[in-house]
Amino acid sequence: MEIRFSERANGLKASEIRELLKLAEMPEIISFAGGLPAPELFPVKEMEEVMQKVLASDAKAAFQYGSTEGIKALRETIAKERMTPAGVNVTADDIAITSGSQQGLEFSARVFVNKGDKIICESPSYLGAINAFRAYQPEFIEIGMDDNGMKVDELEKALKENSNVKMIYTIPDFQNPTGRTMSDDRRKRIAELAAEYKVPVIEDNPYGDLIFEGHRHPSIKSFDKEGWVIYLGTYSKTFCPGLRIGWVCAAPEILQKYIIVKQGADLQCSSLDQRATAQFMQDYDLDAHIEKIKVVYGKRRNLMLESMDKYFPAGVKHTVPVGGLFTWVELKEGLDAAEILQDALKENVAYVPGGSFFPNGGHPNYFRMNYSCMDEDKIVEGVKRLGKVLAKYYK
Amino acid sequence: MEIRFSERANGLKASEIRELLKLAEMPEIISFAGGLPAPELFPVKEMEEVMQKVLASDAKAAFQYGSTEGIKALRETIAKERMTPAGVNVTADDIAITSGSQQGLEFSARVFVNKGDKIICESPSYLGAINAFRAYQPEFIEIGMDDNGMKVDELEKALKENSNVKMIYTIPDFQNPTGRTMSDDRRKRIAELAAEYKVPVIEDNPYGDLIFEGHRHPSIKSFDKEGWVIYLGTYSKTFCPGLRIGWVCAAPEILQKYIIVKQGADLQCSSLDQRATAQFMQDYDLDAHIEKIKVVYGKRRNLMLESMDKYFPAGVKHTVPVGGLFTWVELKEGLDAAEILQDALKENVAYVPGGSFFPNGGHPNYFRMNYSCMDEDKIVEGVKRLGKVLAKYYK
Repeated sequence: MEIRFSERANGLKASEIRELLKLAEMPEIISFAGGLPAPELFPVKEMEEVMQKVLASDAKAAFQYGSTEGIKALRETIAKERMTPAGVNVTADDIAITSGSQQGLEFSARVFVNKGDKIICESPSYLGAINAFRAYQPEFIEIGMDDNGMKVDELEKALKENSNVKMIYTIPDFQNPTGRTMSDDRRKRIAELAAEYKVPVIEDNPYGDLIFEGHRHPSIKSFDKEGWVIYLGTYSKTFCPGLRIGWVCAAPEILQKYIIVKQGADLQCSSLDQRATAQFMQDYDLDAHIEKIKVVYGKRRNLMLESMDKYFPAGVKHTVPVGGLFTWVELKEGLDAAEILQDALKENVAYVPGGSFFPNGGHPNYFRMNYSCMDEDKIVEGVKRLGKVLAKYYK
Repeated sequence: MEIRFSERANGLKASEIRELLKLAEMPEIISFAGGLPAPELFPVKEMEEVMQKVLASDAKAAFQYGSTEGIKALRETIAKERMTPAGVNVTADDIAITSGSQQGLEFSARVFVNKGDKIICESPSYLGAINAFRAYQPEFIEIGMDDNGMKVDELEKALKENSNVKMIYTIPDFQNPTGRTMSDDRRKRIAELAAEYKVPVIEDNPYGDLIFEGHRHPSIKSFDKEGWVIYLGTYSKTFCPGLRIGWVCAAPEILQKYIIVKQGADLQCSSLDQRATAQFMQDYDLDAHIEKIKVVYGKRRNLMLESMDKYFPAGVKHTVPVGGLFTWVELKEGLDAAEILQDALKENVAYVPGGSFFPNGGHPNYFRMNYSCMDEDKIVEGVKRLGKVLAKYYK
């Protein structure tokens, strides 16, 4: 069969992360490769009650088609409990429900990007976003980062020098893959630059609530006066990823495009899962639940960083995330984390090689480590194994 | 704000059907506009048990991320209980779960269609598919229909005369919007033509099980020897549309593209809804449930057709569907069903004007009537009101 796929389908590659998730399922592997929340923290007991309640009171609506933008009760909760604390005062009308924030990412490229247009992103950036964007055949402009996130002077230079930049993509809080957090003044500056250059910002914020010390940072959108910032949120990292409930918060003219795109894409998200999520948020305190997650993840992060400091060869660097799920490891120049992974797998330990987080390639000497979904003994044991593997390359 | 959307987003329009669904929500309107299944037939009691069972046995997996192609138990059920009776002997490996068949439609265009490529479809065809395809900027070639479905001689001529046809889109059973059914010999012929011209067929079959008399027709895919037919199925019309569980069944090389596209689009369908659906299929007999639906819809169809014959002016024609949810009404030349709808709405009755089901425009003198989600008194009363409205145009 000689099948004539579309240009964009010819270029599609399977995500390394998703392929590696298959390894994570083998019980003998200690995998730091995924980005899974800890399942032992899912509010199972509460959700049993919630689900009974939804089915007792509202089953027909929960099993029927519904509106594309999502049920109002859920959008109201998101506006009040998720967006307002992020400094964004909006109502249900400013929110549309998406199938996780992944769908919001894909829609963003679809709404803004023609073939050959430019997307600005952090260097490195989230692999799942890069892959979703890549289907629209853009060029990527990578902006360097430091411990305060995307460098805004480099960003400004890129905006000045490139005319067809169609969006700026950023994960300001505990970035995937680096775990870095953007400083508040840079957030403000990005919002200003977006308005000045009339370029939308896609603010991807799945992790913002999971800050280990102190309060949530103000979102970039909280500094947005004209509506150039599109905020993508999700319950996947703080509640139940399997329910696939995320959202877009954007100015009306932009939100309307996302809703029409969603209509063609899949009509709507699950009526049942939307209702169950809204009911949970009504009956329980998600922020109290988040506090529990933060304690567990904070401990796991500490243990992972301590273990890396103890067991990794001198000269291996890592970031110090103050929230979220990931830390980012830098090996010395000349090493290739993808090659070393083959060795690591022989020792039954896995991570994600960093190369594919750089849309324009290069940088093979990095890898991403996840600490959220592994118990403490395994974190120590896995890092130890990895240290042994790395030691061979640091002789 | 002057926002630079992508070309495809500039061209996007909201679906008339979805906009009209808003009217259907006003209690005073008798709406034949939607395509909703009858909610009183949802297996609510059974699903309460099913949901308890899933949460008692498998909650952590139901709330966690899962694989992009979907859970194996569900794909196995689909292969065995849905595809085999349609004449397609496949296994779980040949199936990927999608968010309704709408997502399968959208993915089809994404996988096969470049800007300017040609899509062949029935004239008229499903509005939701046309809109999803349109985002990829194709040209549409409409093929005439008769009571045996798409005319295969016209199809062959179109394939002969056009080199860049990238897919043939068809709804063989109780087509949306016409309610017409393709004859078995035409199904076979389409499969042959697909192989001969090396053009994929997108066989969209949401309604095939809902046949009022006799057995299910063999699918076009059952005649497919080389893998040119991509079958899109869904539980939306026979089970619970709100759960958004559909599927793609295709040859490995093609299915892989759909899975990668889904990875970028939304990672996966709801883990919970997939498990609940699989559990229902294990514990209950969907075919027995479908029998109940068929009895109700069959009666409603009879009543709608009888009422139209009784109350519509002489000269108004309609199809006689032997299954599914819709019948298709033809007014005399010169009348515009979209204009008449304004009058109908004043009488608190609604339908979908037919024009937008023709991707290349024209044909304003048709409309689509849905009979599945309206109780019998309202069907009679609604058709009566509509007859009164139409009478004014047939003086």
